[in-house]
Amino acid sequence: MADMDIGIIGMAVMGSNLALNMADHGFKVAAYNRTASLTKEVMEKTPHKNLQGFYDLAEFLHSLKSPRRVMLMIKAGKPVDSVIDELIPQLDKGDIIIDGGNSFFEDTIRRYKYLQEKGINYFGVGISGGEKGARFGPSIMPGGNKDEYKHVQPILEAISAHVGEEPCCTYIGDNGAGHYVKMVHNGIEYADMQLIAETYLLLRHVGGFDNKKLSQIFHDWNKGELHSYLIGITADIFAENDENGQPGQLVDKILDSAGQKGTGRWTSIQSLKQGVDISMITAACNTRVLSNLLEERKKAASEITAPVYDDKVGEDFIEEVRKSLYAAKIIAYAQGFSLYNSASEKYGWHLDFGKIASIFRAGCIIQAEFLNKITEAYKKNKNLTNLMFDEFFLNNINENQSSLRNIICLAIRKGIPIPAFSSALQYIDAHRSPQIGANLIQAQRDYFGAHTYARIDKDGVFHHKWQEHYN
Amino acid sequence: MADMDIGIIGMAVMGSNLALNMADHGFKVAAYNRTASLTKEVMEKTPHKNLQGFYDLAEFLHSLKSPRRVMLMIKAGKPVDSVIDELIPQLDKGDIIIDGGNSFFEDTIRRYKYLQEKGINYFGVGISGGEKGARFGPSIMPGGNKDEYKHVQPILEAISAHVGEEPCCTYIGDNGAGHYVKMVHNGIEYADMQLIAETYLLLRHVGGFDNKKLSQIFHDWNKGELHSYLIGITADIFAENDENGQPGQLVDKILDSAGQKGTGRWTSIQSLKQGVDISMITAACNTRVLSNLLEERKKAASEITAPVYDDKVGEDFIEEVRKSLYAAKIIAYAQGFSLYNSASEKYGWHLDFGKIASIFRAGCIIQAEFLNKITEAYKKNKNLTNLMFDEFFLNNINENQSSLRNIICLAIRKGIPIPAFSSALQYIDAHRSPQIGANLIQAQRDYFGAHTYARIDKDGVFHHKWQEHYN
Repeated sequence: MADMDIGIIGMAVMGSNLALNMADHGFKVAAYNRTASLTKEVMEKTPHKNLQGFYDLAEFLHSLKSPRRVMLMIKAGKPVDSVIDELIPQLDKGDIIIDGGNSFFEDTIRRYKYLQEKGINYFGVGISGGEKGARFGPSIMPGGNKDEYKHVQPILEAISAHVGEEPCCTYIGDNGAGHYVKMVHNGIEYADMQLIAETYLLLRHVGGFDNKKLSQIFHDWNKGELHSYLIGITADIFAENDENGQPGQLVDKILDSAGQKGTGRWTSIQSLKQGVDISMITAACNTRVLSNLLEERKKAASEITAPVYDDKVGEDFIEEVRKSLYAAKIIAYAQGFSLYNSASEKYGWHLDFGKIASIFRAGCIIQAEFLNKITEAYKKNKNLTNLMFDEFFLNNINENQSSLRNIICLAIRKGIPIPAFSSALQYIDAHRSPQIGANLIQAQRDYFGAHTYARIDKDGVFHHKWQEHYN
Repeated sequence: MADMDIGIIGMAVMGSNLALNMADHGFKVAAYNRTASLTKEVMEKTPHKNLQGFYDLAEFLHSLKSPRRVMLMIKAGKPVDSVIDELIPQLDKGDIIIDGGNSFFEDTIRRYKYLQEKGINYFGVGISGGEKGARFGPSIMPGGNKDEYKHVQPILEAISAHVGEEPCCTYIGDNGAGHYVKMVHNGIEYADMQLIAETYLLLRHVGGFDNKKLSQIFHDWNKGELHSYLIGITADIFAENDENGQPGQLVDKILDSAGQKGTGRWTSIQSLKQGVDISMITAACNTRVLSNLLEERKKAASEITAPVYDDKVGEDFIEEVRKSLYAAKIIAYAQGFSLYNSASEKYGWHLDFGKIASIFRAGCIIQAEFLNKITEAYKKNKNLTNLMFDEFFLNNINENQSSLRNIICLAIRKGIPIPAFSSALQYIDAHRSPQIGANLIQAQRDYFGAHTYARIDKDGVFHHKWQEHYN
């Protein structure tokens, strides 16, 4: 009897949590895993009246209502292709495969086309929020055929996080759009985290505050315009005791070296391919890379002289750091959303930037008060080319840029690394400065490579026979 | 009668100039072009006793000594694959195809393997120096089978630029090594040019110097440790008159927007894939991208407030800028060579970094006095992990870092965009600072994603059950 609403392949923690989330919302979920023991384990540990385990792929597929909805919660990469090829002969035209993993969006575009030719619908769905999000409400970014979206919409919206009545799930765009938006979301997350890390260094090494005070500062900030999940957990982290019982010192015991799983780097690579400047995200990736060079850093710390700068900071130091963080955060999002802007055109996705910001408001790591402002900005002007130009953000940049300049100079004097803050300001000044110096670069290119140049006073393409004036 | 030393396919400007260069050095060169008229034109315009045009591919190939040496000077990409496939059935085992174009190194690796299976030797050769270099002596970076290199070495070395008796051509490494080294050379060139552009903005907008003075400053600098081709042509550029006769003003008439052909971007993308921080090269690529956004920049210039900062600069301003430029240039090369270092290991190329620096000393755009110092550094320590740690460069960084900090802060106060200078200092401080803040990032990753962490006080991998301390 084909009465199951959806089938999930992959019973690792993300897959089983998503299955339970769906089951909680009244959907009948068929569960399958290549290794049967894992399915069995889930059925035993977390039995649910709406969840049924299957140990044979054909039986699993026969249990599903038509059109069948088969969601893959498996490792991104080749496993997805293998399972798709295994499924194809057992599916009917109009059936739907949903990839809820962290697939690279170009793979999703390729698979979408491949399955389209076989009459099978394919959705690449970005899911953010980790294990807890999967279980109780993630932010969901589905990409695929718009007309077919109605077949997956009720389930995805029901299980997503909500802000009031609004689900944090919206149709993103065709083929790879969902996975693309998820990828850049992760890139923005890298920049957000890097900014907080730099803020920490400033407060600790310039302000001289201890962890208890740091926790209080972040907690205070979390009541205002910086209110966000990441600021909240940072307040928690500084309050956390070490296992050995030293109060508030766990963070000091953690090795100063951060891992990365690759989506930030994918975003940076993609920005270079598209010709969009997302320097803060790239700086965040690079800083994690540098953080891993423990031996080189030790050597550099002992051989490169530390600058001496002992000026006392003023009373408004904490507030200046807060303002700088907010202004820099604006630039991180301006960069991320300008990448969306370019991708929307390049891939023909017609992305709704305001809606994208709105589904990040809950369920995911970058959830923040701030996102409402982005939604509002695009509501006011859907053709906004850069978030910096929205009135709210523009005013903020204008009001806070002197704090940003002060704080960056302070860090530079003290030798505190602040690559993301620094990139934020450079992005502002490269836009704002009446001259960027590219006239000289173009002159050099024309000098050594006859690459030609345009002029400010007449149309056309020019090449000059440059003379040697010295020797 | 097969008595021609080498055949060149592709008679556009680079191919014909290289052919004439070889002919000048006594090699008998067969010239061929798919469109016969181009070959004819070269033969008519620049006849040479050692240069013979062919209008039939079979005849062209029959004219070559065994093992045949066929050099492709054609557009990178698919044309190279097509010509290779056309050549294969007409070549014998042991014959040699040489790709002298700007091919992407991964294509070269692929073609190398493909031809190796067919018994044909393949060299991917990076050639730098533009049209003039091709004609009178470029810097040449050949990659391919080391044992077969003897068949191409005499010609390539003869036609290359020379420093004294030393040719600016050396065997680089297996398969794609030559094209890889050329790609990163171009990336370094981007950073070099960007630093000079930022220096220009500083001297012009902070120092208030006119073009005449700028020309003099660069000319003076070119007599010292900054001596290089790019500094030299910059002095020339500022001295160049506009066509309309205004003295020294041509550079002011050039549109403030720079093009790029892609190799800088390739380098940045590759660095992200390899996990190496080359922030200055990436900043240079991004700044060219931003320079093209003329409308957005105009809008930003009118809407984002310019900072007000009118402090007079001191007497040592020019010297401080010069020192900053030199220190930042060191970092650009440190980044580029750290990418070589990582690639050498990743691809098994056993790159000789000192030798690479030495072949950049003439013929190419980045030729500079400075490169001798890099060669010396690797001579002293061939396992140097980062150029910053060589005594000469380290001393320079230590002596000049306060100038670099001063100049960057000055630019920040004045709102002058200096993304490459800024990235150089951030790279220094991220290495040098005893803390980079990654312990907080790793704590966050463990908090929201159970990514685990290492500790400073004991071995192992840890996960902590983080508590909510507020609410």
